Amino acid sequence: VATARWLVDGRSDAGIAPDDRGLAYGDGLFETIAVRDGAPRLIERHLARLAAGCARLAIPAPSLGLLREEIGTLLDGAARGTLKLIVTRGTGPRGYAPPAAQRPVRALGFWPDESPVAIGSSCALLVCRTPASCNPALAGLKTLNRLDNVLARAEVAAAGAHEGVMTDGPGRIVGGTMTNLFIVRRGELLTPALSRAGVAGVMRAVVLEAASAIGLRSAETDMDVDELMRADEIFLTNALTGIWRVGRVAQRSLGAAPVTIALRARLRELGVDEPGA
Amino acid sequence: VATARWLVDGRSDAGIAPDDRGLAYGDGLFETIAVRDGAPRLIERHLARLAAGCARLAIPAPSLGLLREEIGTLLDGAARGTLKLIVTRGTGPRGYAPPAAQRPVRALGFWPDESPVAIGSSCALLVCRTPASCNPALAGLKTLNRLDNVLARAEVAAAGAHEGVMTDGPGRIVGGTMTNLFIVRRGELLTPALSRAGVAGVMRAVVLEAASAIGLRSAETDMDVDELMRADEIFLTNALTGIWRVGRVAQRSLGAAPVTIALRARLRELGVDEPGA
Repeated sequence: VATARWLVDGRSDAGIAPDDRGLAYGDGLFETIAVRDGAPRLIERHLARLAAGCARLAIPAPSLGLLREEIGTLLDGAARGTLKLIVTRGTGPRGYAPPAAQRPVRALGFWPDESPVAIGSSCALLVCRTPASCNPALAGLKTLNRLDNVLARAEVAAAGAHEGVMTDGPGRIVGGTMTNLFIVRRGELLTPALSRAGVAGVMRAVVLEAASAIGLRSAETDMDVDELMRADEIFLTNALTGIWRVGRVAQRSLGAAPVTIALRARLRELGVDEPGA
Repeated sequence: VATARWLVDGRSDAGIAPDDRGLAYGDGLFETIAVRDGAPRLIERHLARLAAGCARLAIPAPSLGLLREEIGTLLDGAARGTLKLIVTRGTGPRGYAPPAAQRPVRALGFWPDESPVAIGSSCALLVCRTPASCNPALAGLKTLNRLDNVLARAEVAAAGAHEGVMTDGPGRIVGGTMTNLFIVRRGELLTPALSRAGVAGVMRAVVLEAASAIGLRSAETDMDVDELMRADEIFLTNALTGIWRVGRVAQRSLGAAPVTIALRARLRELGVDEPGA
């Protein structure tokens, strides 16, 4: 396992204060970014999502120029790995109320040479018992409140699956524990709407745009486990895996995946495909 | 505002590692404890809840003897203040899956001389727009995933209220942003069931036991905002405020509160009442 190097507010030797609100309440956001061929892939989209998330939580966004500069320092010419950006609301007096004067804290981590989890041929997908945490006020955001994903991911590991799909409890699919989920049904691309829970992934947006570019009809919609089981094709996405084809869900094997293959070809043209996924 | 002193894994000069899972995912739990007359109030209940929460999240609980020892060191004879215990799953490789070998991290903070928020005569209660995050797998636990409480508490501050009540979205009351909620209706004590969301407060348990001791019928139940508005009495509880009477909710003023007064008298007998609340 590769060891990460970190910059906390620009310092390589600093820890996080124990009264940081990121620790206390998960009061912050993060981005996970693939570094490929010496560059952070889709960096502009990641920074834009981070800034939009800060706006929604009323956290003053750190300077994007400063973040870019610190990313350069942290990568130090590395060709490949995983970059993580954390922004918290910073420290403050005890209690949930955001302090009047906010000094956000940024923590940038880099894992050199890291490969995506369980990448390879195709994905065996578990339907998790752990539900996704639902809150329309937080839905779509990549906040530091991810304990539901942690518990679901532990289920996936225990089951020996590659990834797990989480529902909102009443049975609507939210996505994977660390991925967004897509299905193809009668030539249409469908992905769960993120109005109640889930993370609006950067790669999810790229795939929806790619679908449009190749003339594939798509929709963000409610979707239950029955619909997942009847899907013609299933794939997962995140910033590290690109498009990750599902070969098995619960006891069912999936066959040919022409739409998935076409979308991957489009991502390859865009230079954001993950070979081997 | 009083400044806190901290012990992180027993060290007074240590920060939290930036790859701590408490920061990354809110993968941990906390306790907030009133220190009164030189002792952490209801400490055995707090430690028991912390241990039970660790068991539910499969975090190896820290030694309670060690925690007691570190609490003594941190308080250093202080008569009064607020004590906070944080336990995280510790550091680990990147990704949601809990590491095979877990070394939990403990962070103990103490704010000397701190008084409860907005304590005084009675509480003006807002009905918050921000819903509570719902997840049956996490309901009742005092996890580090508290961003919903943060956003709701910001609403309370903006409205100039003392505290806010949060619902689960579909309109069932979960509790206050930093308190559990009780109503009295036709001589019966009712508090929201915590099957989907909310924190099972230590003071909430004390009050339910106190009700039983004074022959007051009580129930944990579903409750909507209409029922709150029709309540004969309303009060809030947490470890710092004890029983905190609500004098106003939205535009409605509440009058005499004989049951609230009787319960407070019982808490006084138990030595866990908060004078002035």
